[in-house]
Amino acid sequence: MLNTMSKIRGQVKTTGYPQTEGLLGDCMLKYGKELGEESAFGNALIEVGESMKRMAEVKDSLDINVKQTFIDPLQLLQDKDLKEIGHHLRKLEGRRLDYDYKKKRVGKIPEEEIRQAIEKFEESKELAERSMFNFLENDVEQVSQLAVFVEAALDYHRQSTQILQELQKKLAIRITYASNIPKREYLSKPVIVTSSSDLNGVSSSTSKIAVSYDFQLHLASSLDIASPND
Amino acid sequence: MLNTMSKIRGQVKTTGYPQTEGLLGDCMLKYGKELGEESAFGNALIEVGESMKRMAEVKDSLDINVKQTFIDPLQLLQDKDLKEIGHHLRKLEGRRLDYDYKKKRVGKIPEEEIRQAIEKFEESKELAERSMFNFLENDVEQVSQLAVFVEAALDYHRQSTQILQELQKKLAIRITYASNIPKREYLSKPVIVTSSSDLNGVSSSTSKIAVSYDFQLHLASSLDIASPND
Repeated sequence: MLNTMSKIRGQVKTTGYPQTEGLLGDCMLKYGKELGEESAFGNALIEVGESMKRMAEVKDSLDINVKQTFIDPLQLLQDKDLKEIGHHLRKLEGRRLDYDYKKKRVGKIPEEEIRQAIEKFEESKELAERSMFNFLENDVEQVSQLAVFVEAALDYHRQSTQILQELQKKLAIRITYASNIPKREYLSKPVIVTSSSDLNGVSSSTSKIAVSYDFQLHLASSLDIASPND
Repeated sequence: MLNTMSKIRGQVKTTGYPQTEGLLGDCMLKYGKELGEESAFGNALIEVGESMKRMAEVKDSLDINVKQTFIDPLQLLQDKDLKEIGHHLRKLEGRRLDYDYKKKRVGKIPEEEIRQAIEKFEESKELAERSMFNFLENDVEQVSQLAVFVEAALDYHRQSTQILQELQKKLAIRITYASNIPKREYLSKPVIVTSSSDLNGVSSSTSKIAVSYDFQLHLASSLDIASPND
Protein backbone atom coordinates (compact mmCIF):
# COMPACT_ATOMS: atom_id res chain seq x y z
CA MET A 1 0.00 0.00 0.00
CA LEU A 2 1.72 3.13 -1.21
CA ASN A 3 1.11 6.31 0.65
CA THR A 4 -0.25 9.28 -1.29
CA MET A 5 2.07 11.58 0.59
CA SER A 6 4.99 9.67 -0.96
CA LYS A 7 3.45 10.12 -4.38
CA ILE A 8 2.87 13.81 -3.80
CA ARG A 9 6.42 14.17 -2.52
CA GLY A 10 7.56 12.69 -5.81
CA GLN A 11 9.10 9.61 -4.21
CA VAL A 12 6.92 7.41 -6.36
CA LYS A 13 6.27 7.99 -10.02
CA THR A 14 2.62 8.41 -10.73
CA THR A 15 0.63 8.88 -13.90
CA GLY A 16 -1.72 11.32 -12.22
CA TYR A 17 -4.01 10.85 -9.28
CA PRO A 18 -7.34 9.25 -10.31
CA GLN A 19 -9.66 12.12 -9.43
CA THR A 20 -13.34 11.24 -8.98
CA GLU A 21 -14.28 13.80 -11.66
CA GLY A 22 -11.85 12.18 -14.10
CA LEU A 23 -13.23 8.66 -13.54
CA LEU A 24 -16.78 9.91 -13.93
CA GLY A 25 -15.74 11.82 -17.06
CA ASP A 26 -14.12 8.71 -18.59
CA CYS A 27 -17.27 6.70 -17.94
CA MET A 28 -19.51 9.39 -19.47
CA LEU A 29 -17.28 9.82 -22.53
CA LYS A 30 -17.12 6.07 -23.15
CA TYR A 31 -20.88 5.46 -23.05
CA GLY A 32 -21.70 8.80 -24.68
CA LYS A 33 -19.62 7.77 -27.69
CA GLU A 34 -21.22 4.31 -27.74
CA LEU A 35 -24.71 5.82 -27.75
CA GLY A 36 -23.68 7.67 -30.93
CA GLU A 37 -24.20 11.06 -32.50
CA GLU A 38 -27.95 10.78 -33.01
CA SER A 39 -28.61 10.33 -29.31
CA ALA A 40 -29.26 13.55 -27.40
CA PHE A 41 -28.34 11.73 -24.20
CA GLY A 42 -25.13 10.42 -25.81
CA ASN A 43 -24.06 13.90 -26.89
CA ALA A 44 -24.94 15.36 -23.51
CA LEU A 45 -22.91 12.63 -21.80
CA ILE A 46 -19.90 13.53 -23.96
CA GLU A 47 -20.31 17.20 -23.09
CA VAL A 48 -20.59 16.55 -19.35
CA GLY A 49 -17.76 14.00 -19.58
CA GLU A 50 -15.42 16.55 -21.18
CA SER A 51 -16.21 19.08 -18.47
CA MET A 52 -15.58 16.45 -15.79
CA LYS A 53 -12.17 15.76 -17.35
CA ARG A 54 -11.36 19.48 -17.23
CA MET A 55 -12.46 19.61 -13.60
CA ALA A 56 -10.15 16.68 -12.84
CA GLU A 57 -7.27 18.70 -14.34
CA VAL A 58 -8.17 21.66 -12.17
CA LYS A 59 -8.14 19.35 -9.14
CA ASP A 60 -4.74 18.00 -10.19
CA SER A 61 -3.47 21.58 -10.29
CA LEU A 62 -4.87 22.13 -6.80
CA ASP A 63 -3.01 19.05 -5.51
CA ILE A 64 0.28 20.19 -7.04
CA ASN A 65 -0.26 23.77 -5.90
CA VAL A 66 -1.06 22.78 -2.29
CA LYS A 67 1.89 20.40 -2.24
CA GLN A 68 4.36 23.05 -3.34
CA THR A 69 3.04 26.10 -1.49
CA PHE A 70 1.64 24.53 1.70
CA ILE A 71 2.74 20.95 2.39
CA ASP A 72 6.40 21.46 1.42
CA PRO A 73 6.96 24.54 3.65
CA LEU A 74 5.13 22.74 6.48
CA GLN A 75 7.36 19.71 5.98
CA LEU A 76 10.45 21.94 6.03
CA LEU A 77 9.28 23.54 9.27
CA GLN A 78 8.94 20.09 10.79
CA ASP A 79 12.26 18.82 9.45
CA LYS A 80 14.27 21.94 10.28
CA ASP A 81 12.85 24.40 12.84
CA LEU A 82 11.00 21.90 15.02
CA LYS A 83 13.81 19.36 14.80
CA GLU A 84 16.30 22.01 15.95
CA ILE A 85 14.09 22.93 18.90
CA GLY A 86 13.80 19.25 19.77
CA HIS A 87 17.57 18.97 19.73
CA HIS A 88 17.95 21.96 22.10
CA LEU A 89 15.33 20.51 24.46
CA ARG A 90 17.03 17.12 24.63
CA LYS A 91 20.37 18.79 25.32
CA LEU A 92 18.77 20.94 28.01
CA GLU A 93 17.30 17.87 29.70
CA GLY A 94 20.72 16.17 29.75
CA ARG A 95 22.37 19.19 31.30
CA ARG A 96 19.59 19.57 33.85
CA LEU A 97 20.07 15.97 34.96
CA ASP A 98 23.83 16.49 35.15
CA TYR A 99 23.39 19.61 37.28
CA ASP A 100 20.82 17.88 39.52
CA TYR A 101 23.21 15.01 40.12
CA LYS A 102 26.17 17.27 40.91
CA LYS A 103 24.09 19.56 43.18
CA LYS A 104 23.41 16.61 45.47
CA ARG A 105 27.11 15.92 45.78
CA VAL A 106 28.08 19.39 47.08
CA GLY A 107 31.23 19.03 49.16
CA LYS A 108 32.11 15.72 47.61
CA ILE A 109 33.11 17.18 44.23
CA PRO A 110 35.04 20.38 43.37
CA GLU A 111 32.93 23.60 43.54
CA GLU A 112 34.25 24.45 40.04
CA GLU A 113 32.57 21.38 38.59
CA ILE A 114 29.16 22.42 39.95
CA ARG A 115 29.62 25.97 38.65
CA GLN A 116 30.38 24.61 35.18
CA ALA A 117 27.26 22.43 35.31
CA ILE A 118 25.12 25.49 36.14
CA GLU A 119 26.70 27.47 33.31
CA LYS A 120 26.12 24.74 30.78
CA PHE A 121 22.56 24.30 31.99
CA GLU A 122 21.92 28.06 31.73
CA GLU A 123 23.41 28.18 28.26
CA SER A 124 21.16 25.34 27.08
CA LYS A 125 18.11 26.83 28.73
CA GLU A 126 18.66 30.10 26.94
CA LEU A 127 19.21 28.40 23.58
CA ALA A 128 16.08 26.27 23.94
CA GLU A 129 13.95 29.18 25.14
CA ARG A 130 15.22 31.51 22.45
CA SER A 131 14.55 28.99 19.67
CA MET A 132 11.01 28.36 20.96
CA PHE A 133 10.39 32.07 21.48
CA ASN A 134 11.47 32.88 17.92
CA PHE A 135 9.39 30.06 16.52
CA LEU A 136 6.24 31.19 18.33
CA GLU A 137 6.93 34.88 17.63
CA ASN A 138 7.08 34.17 13.90
CA ASP A 139 3.74 32.43 13.77
CA VAL A 140 2.38 35.09 11.42
CA GLU A 141 4.47 33.26 8.79
CA GLN A 142 2.39 30.18 9.39
CA VAL A 143 -0.83 32.18 9.15
CA SER A 144 0.40 33.37 5.75
CA GLN A 145 0.97 29.75 4.73
CA LEU A 146 -2.62 28.99 5.73
CA ALA A 147 -3.77 31.94 3.60
CA VAL A 148 -1.86 30.48 0.63
CA PHE A 149 -3.64 27.16 1.17
CA VAL A 150 -7.02 28.91 1.32
CA GLU A 151 -6.23 30.79 -1.89
CA ALA A 152 -5.37 27.55 -3.70
CA ALA A 153 -8.68 26.00 -2.59
CA LEU A 154 -10.54 29.15 -3.59
CA ASP A 155 -8.92 29.10 -7.01
CA TYR A 156 -9.97 25.47 -7.46
CA HIS A 157 -13.60 26.12 -6.58
CA ARG A 158 -13.72 29.25 -8.76
CA GLN A 159 -12.39 27.41 -11.80
CA SER A 160 -14.76 24.48 -11.22
CA THR A 161 -17.66 26.94 -10.94
CA GLN A 162 -16.68 28.49 -14.26
CA ILE A 163 -16.46 25.12 -16.05
CA LEU A 164 -19.85 24.08 -14.68
CA GLN A 165 -21.47 27.41 -15.59
CA GLU A 166 -20.41 26.98 -19.21
CA LEU A 167 -21.60 23.38 -19.16
CA GLN A 168 -24.95 24.38 -17.70
CA LYS A 169 -25.52 26.85 -20.56
CA LYS A 170 -24.62 24.25 -23.17
CA LEU A 171 -26.94 21.68 -21.63
CA ALA A 172 -29.80 24.18 -21.46
CA ILE A 173 -29.42 24.86 -25.20
CA ARG A 174 -29.29 21.13 -25.88
CA ILE A 175 -32.47 20.51 -23.88
CA THR A 176 -34.34 23.35 -25.60
CA TYR A 177 -33.23 22.05 -28.99
CA ALA A 178 -34.11 18.44 -28.25
CA SER A 179 -37.48 19.43 -26.78
CA ASN A 180 -38.39 21.29 -29.98
CA ILE A 181 -37.78 18.32 -32.24
CA PRO A 182 -41.24 16.89 -33.02
CA LYS A 183 -41.70 13.51 -31.39
CA ARG A 184 -41.54 10.63 -33.83
CA GLU A 185 -44.18 7.96 -33.52
CA TYR A 186 -43.27 4.32 -33.40
CA LEU A 187 -44.06 2.65 -36.74
CA SER A 188 -44.57 -1.04 -36.48
CA LYS A 189 -42.89 -3.01 -39.26
CA PRO A 190 -44.60 -6.36 -39.80
CA VAL A 191 -42.28 -9.36 -39.70
CA ILE A 192 -41.84 -11.20 -42.97
CA VAL A 193 -39.59 -13.75 -41.46
CA THR A 194 -37.48 -15.91 -43.69
CA SER A 195 -34.32 -16.19 -41.62
CA SER A 196 -33.06 -15.01 -38.26
CA SER A 197 -31.09 -12.18 -39.94
CA ASP A 198 -34.39 -10.29 -40.24
CA LEU A 199 -34.10 -9.53 -36.58
CA ASN A 200 -31.24 -7.08 -37.11
CA GLY A 201 -33.60 -4.15 -36.83
CA VAL A 202 -34.20 -5.09 -33.25
CA SER A 203 -30.57 -5.62 -32.30
CA SER A 204 -29.54 -2.03 -33.17
CA SER A 205 -31.91 -0.57 -30.60
CA THR A 206 -31.03 -3.38 -28.21
CA SER A 207 -27.35 -2.48 -28.21
CA LYS A 208 -28.18 1.17 -27.42
CA ILE A 209 -30.31 0.07 -24.54
CA ALA A 210 -27.48 -2.17 -23.37
CA VAL A 211 -25.09 0.78 -23.55
CA SER A 212 -27.50 2.89 -21.55
CA TYR A 213 -27.83 0.16 -18.95
CA ASP A 214 -24.06 -0.35 -18.75
CA PHE A 215 -23.58 3.39 -18.37
CA GLN A 216 -25.88 3.47 -15.40
CA LEU A 217 -24.13 0.57 -13.70
CA HIS A 218 -20.70 2.13 -14.32
CA LEU A 219 -21.89 5.54 -13.25
CA ALA A 220 -23.04 4.09 -9.97
CA SER A 221 -19.66 2.48 -9.38
CA SER A 222 -17.79 5.61 -10.51
CA LEU A 223 -19.68 7.77 -8.07
CA ASP A 224 -18.85 5.18 -5.50
CA ILE A 225 -15.12 5.72 -5.92
CA ALA A 226 -15.41 9.01 -4.08
CA SER A 227 -15.69 7.11 -0.83
CA PRO A 228 -12.36 6.05 0.64
CA ASN A 229 -13.59 4.71 3.94
CA ASP A 230 -15.87 1.78 3.34
CA MET B 1 -16.60 -3.36 3.99
CA LEU B 2 -19.81 -1.43 3.60
CA ASN B 3 -20.58 0.08 0.29
CA THR B 4 -21.18 3.84 0.15
CA MET B 5 -23.97 3.34 -2.33
CA SER B 6 -25.78 1.35 0.35
CA LYS B 7 -25.22 4.19 2.77
CA ILE B 8 -26.42 6.77 0.27
CA ARG B 9 -29.43 4.59 -0.52
CA GLY B 10 -30.22 4.69 3.19
CA GLN B 11 -29.80 0.95 3.66
CA VAL B 12 -27.22 1.58 6.35
CA LYS B 13 -27.55 4.18 9.06
CA THR B 14 -24.75 6.66 8.96
CA THR B 15 -23.77 9.56 11.17
CA GLY B 16 -22.65 11.60 8.17
CA TYR B 17 -20.00 10.87 5.61
CA PRO B 18 -16.51 11.86 6.85
CA GLN B 19 -15.74 14.54 4.26
CA THR B 20 -12.08 15.46 3.81
CA GLU B 21 -12.88 19.10 4.62
CA GLY B 22 -14.55 18.03 7.87
CA LEU B 23 -11.59 15.92 9.00
CA LEU B 24 -9.17 18.70 8.18
CA GLY B 25 -11.44 21.16 9.99
CA ASP B 26 -11.56 18.98 13.11
CA CYS B 27 -7.78 18.74 13.15
CA MET B 28 -7.36 22.50 12.73
CA LEU B 29 -9.94 23.31 15.41
CA LYS B 30 -8.34 20.89 17.88
CA TYR B 31 -4.80 22.23 17.57
CA GLY B 32 -5.95 25.82 17.10
CA LYS B 33 -7.67 25.63 20.49
CA GLU B 34 -4.62 23.98 22.07
CA LEU B 35 -2.34 26.74 20.82
CA GLY B 36 -4.56 29.19 22.68
CA GLU B 37 -5.97 32.66 22.19
CA GLU B 38 -2.66 34.52 22.24
CA SER B 39 -1.36 32.60 19.26
CA ALA B 40 -2.06 34.23 15.89
CA PHE B 41 -1.52 30.84 14.26
CA GLY B 42 -3.90 29.20 16.73
CA ASN B 43 -6.66 31.72 16.03
CA ALA B 44 -6.12 31.42 12.29
CA LEU B 45 -6.31 27.64 12.54
CA ILE B 46 -9.66 27.93 14.34
CA GLU B 47 -10.93 30.30 11.66
CA VAL B 48 -9.85 28.05 8.79
CA GLY B 49 -11.11 24.99 10.68
CA GLU B 50 -14.58 26.50 11.08
CA SER B 51 -14.74 27.29 7.38
CA MET B 52 -13.64 23.74 6.56
CA LYS B 53 -16.47 22.41 8.72
CA ARG B 54 -18.94 24.61 6.84
CA MET B 55 -17.54 23.35 3.54
CA ALA B 56 -18.01 19.77 4.74
CA GLU B 57 -21.68 20.58 5.39
CA VAL B 58 -22.02 22.01 1.89
CA LYS B 59 -20.50 18.79 0.53
CA ASP B 60 -22.94 16.74 2.61
CA SER B 61 -25.78 18.72 1.02
CA LEU B 62 -24.33 17.98 -2.41
CA ASP B 63 -24.27 14.24 -1.64
CA ILE B 64 -27.88 14.25 -0.47
CA ASN B 65 -28.98 16.47 -3.36
CA VAL B 66 -27.28 14.28 -6.01
CA LYS B 67 -28.68 11.17 -4.40
CA GLN B 68 -32.26 12.44 -4.49
CA THR B 69 -32.30 14.26 -7.80
CA PHE B 70 -29.88 12.20 -9.90
CA ILE B 71 -29.01 8.76 -8.48
CA ASP B 72 -32.56 7.86 -7.41
CA PRO B 73 -34.19 8.64 -10.79
CA LEU B 74 -31.34 6.78 -12.52
CA GLN B 75 -31.90 3.82 -10.23
CA LEU B 76 -35.62 3.90 -10.97
CA LEU B 77 -34.89 3.93 -14.70
CA GLN B 78 -32.73 0.87 -14.27
CA ASP B 79 -35.17 -0.93 -12.00
CA LYS B 80 -38.30 -0.11 -14.02
CA ASP B 81 -37.88 0.99 -17.66
CA LEU B 82 -34.76 -1.02 -18.48
CA LYS B 83 -36.02 -4.06 -16.58
CA GLU B 84 -39.27 -3.94 -18.56
CA ILE B 85 -37.38 -3.77 -21.84
CA GLY B 86 -35.24 -6.70 -20.73
CA HIS B 87 -38.39 -8.66 -19.99
CA HIS B 88 -39.79 -7.95 -23.48
CA LEU B 89 -36.51 -8.95 -25.11
CA ARG B 90 -36.33 -12.26 -23.25
CA LYS B 91 -39.94 -13.03 -24.22
CA LEU B 92 -39.17 -12.13 -27.82
CA GLU B 93 -36.19 -14.50 -27.88
CA GLY B 94 -38.33 -17.32 -26.55
CA ARG B 95 -41.01 -16.78 -29.16
CA ARG B 96 -38.41 -16.52 -31.92
CA LEU B 97 -36.97 -19.89 -30.92
CA ASP B 98 -40.45 -21.38 -30.80
CA TYR B 99 -41.24 -20.05 -34.27
CA ASP B 100 -37.86 -21.23 -35.65
CA TYR B 101 -38.50 -24.70 -34.33
CA LYS B 102 -42.02 -24.90 -35.74
CA LYS B 103 -40.98 -23.45 -39.12
CA LYS B 104 -38.65 -26.42 -39.65
CA ARG B 105 -41.49 -28.82 -39.02
CA VAL B 106 -43.81 -27.46 -41.77
CA GLY B 107 -46.05 -30.27 -42.90
CA LYS B 108 -45.47 -32.27 -39.76
CA ILE B 109 -47.52 -29.97 -37.50
CA PRO B 110 -50.82 -28.16 -38.15
CA GLU B 111 -50.51 -24.96 -40.26
CA GLU B 112 -52.56 -23.19 -37.56
CA GLU B 113 -49.86 -23.80 -34.97
CA ILE B 114 -47.19 -22.14 -37.15
CA ARG B 115 -49.49 -19.19 -37.84
CA GLN B 116 -49.99 -18.72 -34.09
CA ALA B 117 -46.23 -18.85 -33.52
CA ILE B 118 -45.70 -16.10 -36.12
CA GLU B 119 -48.40 -13.97 -34.52
CA LYS B 120 -46.98 -14.33 -31.06
CA PHE B 121 -43.51 -13.59 -32.36
CA GLU B 122 -44.75 -10.46 -34.18
CA GLU B 123 -46.60 -9.30 -31.10
CA SER B 124 -43.47 -9.65 -28.97
CA LYS B 125 -41.29 -7.97 -31.57
CA GLU B 126 -43.60 -4.96 -31.67
CA LEU B 127 -43.74 -4.72 -27.88
CA ALA B 128 -39.96 -4.92 -27.53
CA GLU B 129 -39.31 -2.46 -30.35
CA ARG B 130 -41.92 -0.03 -29.09
CA SER B 131 -40.55 -0.07 -25.55
CA MET B 132 -36.99 0.52 -26.81
CA PHE B 133 -38.16 3.19 -29.25
CA ASN B 134 -39.98 5.09 -26.52
CA PHE B 135 -37.04 4.78 -24.16
CA LEU B 136 -34.60 6.18 -26.72
CA GLU B 137 -37.06 8.82 -27.94
CA ASN B 138 -37.43 10.15 -24.41
CA ASP B 139 -33.70 10.58 -23.86
CA VAL B 140 -34.13 14.33 -23.43
CA GLU B 141 -35.47 13.38 -19.99
CA GLN B 142 -32.09 11.88 -19.18
CA VAL B 143 -30.32 14.98 -20.47
CA SER B 144 -32.46 16.98 -18.04
CA GLN B 145 -31.35 14.65 -15.25
CA LEU B 146 -27.73 15.32 -16.19
CA ALA B 147 -28.47 19.05 -16.09
CA VAL B 148 -29.86 18.64 -12.56
CA PHE B 149 -26.65 16.85 -11.56
CA VAL B 150 -24.54 19.65 -13.06
CA GLU B 151 -26.61 22.25 -11.21
CA ALA B 152 -26.04 20.47 -7.89
CA ALA B 153 -22.28 20.38 -8.50
CA LEU B 154 -22.32 24.04 -9.55
CA ASP B 155 -24.19 24.98 -6.41
CA TYR B 156 -21.62 23.14 -4.29
CA HIS B 157 -18.66 24.91 -5.91
CA ARG B 158 -20.38 28.30 -5.70
CA GLN B 159 -21.08 27.92 -1.99
CA SER B 160 -17.54 26.69 -1.31
CA THR B 161 -16.17 29.67 -3.24
CA GLN B 162 -18.23 32.01 -1.08
CA ILE B 163 -17.08 30.44 2.19
CA LEU B 164 -13.44 30.63 1.08
CA GLN B 165 -13.77 34.24 -0.09
CA GLU B 166 -15.01 35.30 3.33
CA LEU B 167 -12.24 33.28 4.98
CA GLN B 168 -9.61 34.85 2.73
CA LYS B 169 -10.71 38.35 3.80
CA LYS B 170 -10.63 37.42 7.49
CA LEU B 171 -7.15 35.91 7.18
CA ALA B 172 -5.85 38.98 5.32
CA ILE B 173 -7.06 41.19 8.19
CA ARG B 174 -5.47 38.83 10.71
CA ILE B 175 -2.14 38.88 8.87
CA THR B 176 -2.13 42.70 8.60
CA TYR B 177 -2.95 42.99 12.29
CA ALA B 178 -0.32 40.45 13.39
CA SER B 179 2.32 42.04 11.16
CA ASN B 180 1.76 45.44 12.76
CA ILE B 181 2.35 44.19 16.28
CA PRO B 182 5.91 45.23 17.18
CA LYS B 183 8.19 42.24 17.45
CA ARG B 184 9.08 41.33 21.02
CA GLU B 185 12.70 40.56 21.74
CA TYR B 186 13.70 37.48 23.66
CA LEU B 187 14.69 38.39 27.20
CA SER B 188 16.97 35.89 28.82
CA LYS B 189 16.06 35.13 32.42
CA PRO B 190 19.03 33.82 34.37
CA VAL B 191 18.48 30.57 36.21
CA ILE B 192 18.47 30.72 39.95
CA VAL B 193 17.93 27.07 40.34
CA THR B 194 16.80 25.70 43.63
CA SER B 195 14.50 22.95 42.50
CA SER B 196 13.34 21.46 39.22
CA SER B 197 10.04 23.40 39.40
CA ASP B 198 11.97 26.46 38.22
CA LEU B 199 11.91 24.93 34.80
CA ASN B 200 8.20 25.63 34.41
CA GLY B 201 8.90 28.67 32.29
CA VAL B 202 10.37 26.42 29.66
CA SER B 203 7.61 23.85 29.69
CA SER B 204 4.88 26.34 28.73
CA SER B 205 6.57 27.14 25.45
CA THR B 206 7.49 23.50 25.00
CA SER B 207 3.87 22.40 25.07
CA LYS B 208 2.95 24.95 22.42
CA ILE B 209 5.75 23.69 20.24
CA ALA B 210 4.54 20.15 20.83
CA VAL B 211 1.03 21.18 19.79
CA SER B 212 2.39 22.79 16.65
CA TYR B 213 4.37 19.66 15.83
CA ASP B 214 1.37 17.41 16.48
CA PHE B 215 -0.79 19.63 14.28
CA GLN B 216 1.61 19.27 11.42
CA LEU B 217 1.74 15.49 11.73
CA HIS B 218 -2.05 15.27 11.92
CA LEU B 219 -2.53 17.72 9.09
CA ALA B 220 -0.34 15.55 6.90
CA SER B 221 -2.40 12.49 7.71
CA SER B 222 -5.69 14.39 7.33
CA LEU B 223 -4.77 15.58 3.87
CA ASP B 224 -3.82 12.00 3.14
CA ILE B 225 -7.36 10.79 3.82
CA ALA B 226 -8.47 12.28 0.51
CA SER B 227 -6.77 9.39 -1.28
CA PRO B 228 -8.86 6.24 -1.45
CA ASN B 229 -6.65 4.22 -3.74
CA ASP B 230 -3.29 3.62 -2.12
